[in-house]
Amino acid sequence: MYIIIVYDVNVKRVNKVKSFLRKHLNWIQNSVFEGEVTESELEWIKTKLSMIINKEEDAIVIYKLKSKPKREIIGIEKNPIDDII
Amino acid sequence: MYIIIVYDVNVKRVNKVKSFLRKHLNWIQNSVFEGEVTESELEWIKTKLSMIINKEEDAIVIYKLKSKPKREIIGIEKNPIDDII
Repeated sequence: MYIIIVYDVNVKRVNKVKSFLRKHLNWIQNSVFEGEVTESELEWIKTKLSMIINKEEDAIVIYKLKSKPKREIIGIEKNPIDDII
Repeated sequence: MYIIIVYDVNVKRVNKVKSFLRKHLNWIQNSVFEGEVTESELEWIKTKLSMIINKEEDAIVIYKLKSKPKREIIGIEKNPIDDII
């Protein structure tokens, strides 16, 4: 499955979230990662994020898609992922 | 079509982007909007965003999906959209 993760996390924890997600997904821009994962990878990502964040202050949305979606960029493309893969 | 917009825009322009998107889409969390749009609405959104942002500094990603994707929340749900719609 293909996931997009967007997070809104207190600055105290944001580097932990970012460095964890970097190991599993592609960084797209500030607070956005995406990538192909298995069900078990997704479970691991969710478990780990739950441990890092403060659930009363932070918010993370995980969009679960069947495949990589079409996307359009306006402005600068911070991480031109399509050229890398 | 269903779109998710994530933006990484200089603080000078962020309020303009946010108040424009609020008219057309549902606010999800910091820097994320989503909603159902027609092709022509999407064209209008893209045109207008291009006028607001500085294309050499700011970045906006628009994911184009066929329908509203499944999603999971970890932490607080800032805008419980599913309850509203």
